[in-house]
Amino acid sequence: MIGIFDSGVGGLTVVKALQKQLPTLSFIYFGDTARTPYGTKGKETIIRYAIENTQFLIDHGAKVVLIACHTVSAVAMQSLKDKFNIPIFGVVEPAIHEALRISAHKKIGVIGTKATITSNIYTKSLTELDKSVKMFERSAGLLVPLVEERFWNRPETRRIVKYYLRPLKLQHVDTLILACTHYPFLSKVIQGIIGTRVKLVNPSESLIASFQEFLNHNDDIHQSLDDNSIQKFYVSDDPETFQKTALWWLGKKVDVLLN
Amino acid sequence: MIGIFDSGVGGLTVVKALQKQLPTLSFIYFGDTARTPYGTKGKETIIRYAIENTQFLIDHGAKVVLIACHTVSAVAMQSLKDKFNIPIFGVVEPAIHEALRISAHKKIGVIGTKATITSNIYTKSLTELDKSVKMFERSAGLLVPLVEERFWNRPETRRIVKYYLRPLKLQHVDTLILACTHYPFLSKVIQGIIGTRVKLVNPSESLIASFQEFLNHNDDIHQSLDDNSIQKFYVSDDPETFQKTALWWLGKKVDVLLN
Repeated sequence: MIGIFDSGVGGLTVVKALQKQLPTLSFIYFGDTARTPYGTKGKETIIRYAIENTQFLIDHGAKVVLIACHTVSAVAMQSLKDKFNIPIFGVVEPAIHEALRISAHKKIGVIGTKATITSNIYTKSLTELDKSVKMFERSAGLLVPLVEERFWNRPETRRIVKYYLRPLKLQHVDTLILACTHYPFLSKVIQGIIGTRVKLVNPSESLIASFQEFLNHNDDIHQSLDDNSIQKFYVSDDPETFQKTALWWLGKKVDVLLN
Repeated sequence: MIGIFDSGVGGLTVVKALQKQLPTLSFIYFGDTARTPYGTKGKETIIRYAIENTQFLIDHGAKVVLIACHTVSAVAMQSLKDKFNIPIFGVVEPAIHEALRISAHKKIGVIGTKATITSNIYTKSLTELDKSVKMFERSAGLLVPLVEERFWNRPETRRIVKYYLRPLKLQHVDTLILACTHYPFLSKVIQGIIGTRVKLVNPSESLIASFQEFLNHNDDIHQSLDDNSIQKFYVSDDPETFQKTALWWLGKKVDVLLN
């Protein structure tokens, strides 16, 4: 069983990528909808929530854990690796490698939540790997509520995206990491504003691609994962709303249990 | 000691009104910043949080509790009154009486969070008091993040406010209840769009006015409250950010402790 968690519904983008690439693997998903969002909260609190969520997944049979949440991947990854003795994958590292691979001029932009950008993880990690990289990070706090309010392609959304992207555009980034699971919903708007020459990185897809590669090299772990296509969804609040979002993101009805 | 709680920083508008009207009374404030916001969450979860917060305030010496949060006042008031044996005041009832008092044609609009509007509390309570009242409610989910991102008077904000207020304007409401503690920050924008003939109700001020009247009629309780101007602030996450917001909302530096 694969364990996946997110602060809420955003991690469904990881589920979607997983189902596309590795459709037979069973998973359990936990969305912490009672405490969402994480991106505006402090580091200690995020680490505490991340440990609780990981424990929940392990208690329910997870043998590996995928962290679908950028905020957690950015600030709590090391704490989770220190505490738990199973393979744990976050969204930050795969996105970094993908960005390095596709960026022509090594001018890389990142947009994310306040907590993700404040952590400075993308700049730190990328410049550690390649000193020639120029990084431009920007916190974009309104994009999650805009997606959740379904303001996907309204003029207000375009203006707000323009406002957030302006400094990155001025710096002529050639690659832009969408460092929050919600942002791919705005990728058309974002691509339109940043320009079609700029390559967008969707970290949910990068995560699953890198996880698939890991499984190819770790057959024992691959074998230990259940491949009966079992899917379990748990949330900490309001299963009905989560179910509606899942129906619409994944294109099918799923059972959602309250934990 | 007065106890005040809110899902986060919004309740500082109640603190501000309290300090203006009853400056010598001591209070303890709890902002549940680790689980904010409440307005997007389910009823059972909100009730659970409200009970925990009220218990915390009582454990710290509160003799009366003011609920600064509209969402809690809308969905958890009865549960709190059933559970606790001290006077508890919410923001909904005072706002309703104020709206009835000032509305000339009894066409009253309400904007609030998803949870507040879904509860339908304003329409239920107002039409119970006066059957001739016509109510128009509208959920305005983006206004809290816009205030928190300090997008107070930007063109994007004006467009979004316009979008939310359009149906209320078409119905010619004469009074508009700002049913979320954050909204008074946008009152200039809101007034500009809804029109200067429409009267705005700021429930934080209504709450304190009605609490003051209660104290005038309940001298024993008034006497039991500490009047040494002691102020204590607790939050469940990130005291630094709360302190910054408090400095800016209240105009002075306050000590903030993590609970």
